[in-house]
Amino acid sequence: MIRTSIATVSLSGTLEQKLTAIAAAGFDGFEIFEPDFIGSALTPAALASRAADLGLSIDLYQPFRDLDSTDEAQYARNLVRAEHKFDLMEQLGCDTILVCSSPLPSAVRDDDRLAAQLHGLAERAHRRGIRVAYEALAWGAHVNTYRHAWNIVAAVDHPALGTCLDSFHILSRGDDPAGIRDIPGEKIFFLQLADAPAMAMDVLQWSRHYRKFPGQGTFDLAAFGAHVHATGYAGPWSLEIFNDVFRQSSTGRTAADAHRSLRHLQEQVATRMPGSAGLFVPPARPDIDGVVSLRIAAGPDRAAQLRTMLGSIGFGYAGRHREHELELWRHGELTVAVDATSDTAWTAPAAGTPLPVLSQIGIRSADPDAWEARALALEVPAHEVELPGAVSESADPAADVVRLRVTEATSIDLRGPASRAAWREAFEPQSQPLALPSLLTGVDHVALAVRPDDWDGIMLRLRSVFGMQPNEGVDIPDSVGQLRSQSLTMTGTGSASPLRISLNMVPGCPAGPEHPTAIRRGGVSHVAFTCADIFATAAELVTLGHRRPAISANYYDDLVTRFDLDPQILWQMREFGILYDADGGGEYFQLFTETVGADLFFEIVQRVGDYRGQGELNSAVRVAAHLRAGC
Amino acid sequence: MIRTSIATVSLSGTLEQKLTAIAAAGFDGFEIFEPDFIGSALTPAALASRAADLGLSIDLYQPFRDLDSTDEAQYARNLVRAEHKFDLMEQLGCDTILVCSSPLPSAVRDDDRLAAQLHGLAERAHRRGIRVAYEALAWGAHVNTYRHAWNIVAAVDHPALGTCLDSFHILSRGDDPAGIRDIPGEKIFFLQLADAPAMAMDVLQWSRHYRKFPGQGTFDLAAFGAHVHATGYAGPWSLEIFNDVFRQSSTGRTAADAHRSLRHLQEQVATRMPGSAGLFVPPARPDIDGVVSLRIAAGPDRAAQLRTMLGSIGFGYAGRHREHELELWRHGELTVAVDATSDTAWTAPAAGTPLPVLSQIGIRSADPDAWEARALALEVPAHEVELPGAVSESADPAADVVRLRVTEATSIDLRGPASRAAWREAFEPQSQPLALPSLLTGVDHVALAVRPDDWDGIMLRLRSVFGMQPNEGVDIPDSVGQLRSQSLTMTGTGSASPLRISLNMVPGCPAGPEHPTAIRRGGVSHVAFTCADIFATAAELVTLGHRRPAISANYYDDLVTRFDLDPQILWQMREFGILYDADGGGEYFQLFTETVGADLFFEIVQRVGDYRGQGELNSAVRVAAHLRAGC
Repeated sequence: MIRTSIATVSLSGTLEQKLTAIAAAGFDGFEIFEPDFIGSALTPAALASRAADLGLSIDLYQPFRDLDSTDEAQYARNLVRAEHKFDLMEQLGCDTILVCSSPLPSAVRDDDRLAAQLHGLAERAHRRGIRVAYEALAWGAHVNTYRHAWNIVAAVDHPALGTCLDSFHILSRGDDPAGIRDIPGEKIFFLQLADAPAMAMDVLQWSRHYRKFPGQGTFDLAAFGAHVHATGYAGPWSLEIFNDVFRQSSTGRTAADAHRSLRHLQEQVATRMPGSAGLFVPPARPDIDGVVSLRIAAGPDRAAQLRTMLGSIGFGYAGRHREHELELWRHGELTVAVDATSDTAWTAPAAGTPLPVLSQIGIRSADPDAWEARALALEVPAHEVELPGAVSESADPAADVVRLRVTEATSIDLRGPASRAAWREAFEPQSQPLALPSLLTGVDHVALAVRPDDWDGIMLRLRSVFGMQPNEGVDIPDSVGQLRSQSLTMTGTGSASPLRISLNMVPGCPAGPEHPTAIRRGGVSHVAFTCADIFATAAELVTLGHRRPAISANYYDDLVTRFDLDPQILWQMREFGILYDADGGGEYFQLFTETVGADLFFEIVQRVGDYRGQGELNSAVRVAAHLRAGC
Repeated sequence: MIRTSIATVSLSGTLEQKLTAIAAAGFDGFEIFEPDFIGSALTPAALASRAADLGLSIDLYQPFRDLDSTDEAQYARNLVRAEHKFDLMEQLGCDTILVCSSPLPSAVRDDDRLAAQLHGLAERAHRRGIRVAYEALAWGAHVNTYRHAWNIVAAVDHPALGTCLDSFHILSRGDDPAGIRDIPGEKIFFLQLADAPAMAMDVLQWSRHYRKFPGQGTFDLAAFGAHVHATGYAGPWSLEIFNDVFRQSSTGRTAADAHRSLRHLQEQVATRMPGSAGLFVPPARPDIDGVVSLRIAAGPDRAAQLRTMLGSIGFGYAGRHREHELELWRHGELTVAVDATSDTAWTAPAAGTPLPVLSQIGIRSADPDAWEARALALEVPAHEVELPGAVSESADPAADVVRLRVTEATSIDLRGPASRAAWREAFEPQSQPLALPSLLTGVDHVALAVRPDDWDGIMLRLRSVFGMQPNEGVDIPDSVGQLRSQSLTMTGTGSASPLRISLNMVPGCPAGPEHPTAIRRGGVSHVAFTCADIFATAAELVTLGHRRPAISANYYDDLVTRFDLDPQILWQMREFGILYDADGGGEYFQLFTETVGADLFFEIVQRVGDYRGQGELNSAVRVAAHLRAGC
């Protein structure tokens, strides 16, 4: 199997805390990032001993900067500096050092002279039994591509000199990684992997602050990894992530995400290289078949408001749980469980999460156990696979449900064939049969509130365990701030329409008198139901007592200048407070409820043709209307 | 006087809240940002009436995008769209519309054709009594410089067409603004002002998220403003700021900062253009003469620890306040008041600020009243000029102190000649005369913890009221996150050495079990005292019982590879835990105390030659040592 490694800079904490977390997450080794070592009270021998106790190898000492110099006296001093580091590495039991290309004006710009200087270092390293991995920084003054670095290494042709490949330095420049296949695997001395979001910014700043784990950004690391694997490279796959958020997040959680990201990446590479050895492959993603139920934790305080809201969009009360303060509400094939308990172990969201919150998304699956096996292979801890206790169905093996946590507040429940009966038995049905309208036809998307420091971990979990595909993210300014929104789509799953989940970033701070918008009034979380005819639905809802936030007249006056709309349609949109968007593929109509609490609301949408978005451009108008309605 | 204006997009809140804050801050008018209007429930007539009630003029309707098009049918539709907006402007009573250059592939790239299309719009506007202000976006497809925009406007030569100058679009590109003097003032139809921090990133993203008010960034807006003023431009100076932090900050506070920024800018322009009319000029900055005292609010819980710490660096107890739990501690000419009261009105920092905190920086001034007049002219509210009540000295006119708030927790006190006597009378002196060492010679710098959403306002206050000059900011990664640090220097003030104040950004969130570093253990705030001989001082402190955090041995092993240090010096640094840095100008030696509480510590430094920094590179090593010491 491929060995896994991680640079200590990728995590928050003291060096001791980092090593403990790295071992606990299942890594085989680590790169020691020099500043982490310099600040540490661990002597080299103590660090070596600590690593050995934890079963970790020290795979790389890094970085060694600015070796080459047009000033030969400086180069000579740099060799002395290198010998100091070789002494240290000997004590550490680390045999590979990263040397990166120089970004300084003094960098050697003549390839032959540069090769000679690297040869000088390699000779000294060789005598000490040390290997030099030479890497092109994307912002190197002369050497800034992997091909150039490899050409220099090939020219030196010394057993102690190889190259280090770093996906960030290669992919951030838009270089074609296919040429990696031209490098002999044994001359690749180290591999560093990092993903990153697409950003139009200086590459140095991008690298130092915004790197992410594979599967959290937009680089095609599966292709990259396949190129490297094809060379026969046999060293560790290592993560070197500089990220401002990770620097202050939970060390253990970040390390677990890091290890998961390498398993996820190996699975993707294996898909491209069937039959290839050494790659980790978890059980495949089982099929799913659309959203079957939702559970909303409202607590005793918000339950009444939630009931009224559900009633106003055509849901009817259908029964009560035999043991808990849990009610079933139905509309056609759609089921919403209203959770009015005050016990947070039962309502699921962690203490402190503002209620109401969408706590469970129930999805029909032929084989929940296969989902559980996949989740465990991707290192979702067992306690996050199934909540023990309170919920009767999960204590009962016949319940046939596997619950996978997505955010702190929300899980996805994979509901197997037997779960329907178990669910039915748990509830005492309403004696009167329900006569409900069938306006709503399914779930278009759900939006979840996510804190900045949870964002990347949640993204990775949805992409790895669930195989969801990220769409382009958007920043939506409105009158209470700016909402970062990123949707993901779960496709290829039977006949059901795709499930979209939007992650909406909310500030992590509680509200205070000086920060009225810190908890975001105007709504973040919502469930969008689909309908076949938005105008018929809107008209029907009026009879049900639907209260909608008043959309400004100015919105419709402006809509006329943007779209060539039938006056009759426009009149109806004004009348019912329906919002509109269109793109090259189709049209989108939206209708909102007021919010329950400050945060949660429902949306009813109609898609015409192949409209791609979720009406993001209308978000500010919707927020303004919600704020006016006192939401 | 120059009229002041601001675009509604610059502030958080509903349109109604924005207008109220704009009027309260003292602006003469505003630019209506179209999305703010579209989301609002105010009809055009109601908005006009609201503005009139508040005494505000509607100076600009903006933006009108993508007028010109190589598709003539699209251009024709755009003219229809413009007529819709003219209708609206008529109802608003707004006579100027901003038209920005097109960034689209369909933008007209032939200047004559572009002029013809703009002429077509100008003709229509003229008929309606409306003026068109044409602006070059920095990312315009064809027109992206102010010269180009002005050349087109000059070619059209129509009374209803002028140009709009936006400092961001001009200075972000590095364009020379001197050419503005070639534009006749009456053809400049509008002026938008924005500052921005130096950032190596895509100019569109920079513009949309990181603009700041004048005096909060690095643009030379004083020179820019002088060029514009020299043309005879008589319209408003208006702020158009897109900033992610301002979008969710207190509306009123941001508006007040905005207005202050324009007063500050006018003062700077006036300095460059002596005798020029129309510019606002506050009373000049009076001289000051160095730090004379510090007050630290420790509360009853931290006072004992603070006393021990002060004693360990050579301060001695010198007396107690006759009325309050306030003690004087002295060392040579230095005075520290230890505030052990539990009353937050007296300890000054707002409730919730973690103690201990540096609550007052006392600076000697010949004329505190002149400082008060300047502060009021720069719109520091009277209640922030002097805290009434609790502090006896400020209730007493003879006290001769003016207190100017800098952060939520810290003020700068300007202490006049009479304050020394008042101070002496308020304290009951220690009966025993003190025999103190004179190791410490002054205050090198103080560092204050600042929340992200307070940062820009504090920066502006220090730069405007106090005339402080910002140095380059740094991001310092360490084991608990990353510290954004920015120092400012107060110079040219008598014989005293300059006062440096560092602002250190801390996350605004409280600590939680999952976020152990949200309140930053390892220290943020500190006071750095100067000394003449760091080794003699360190030796003396040992006898005083000074406890220092243990600096890692690895640090000194690495120091050898970086600097050519005398082994004897290095040995002493190891022995005393002294940190070291050097730059082209000189050397810097640093010695730390442990922290009081989680946050505050003292530093003793020696500067040799003209060293510019504050040892920022050593910060991570210091934090690691503090964390090990349980700080």
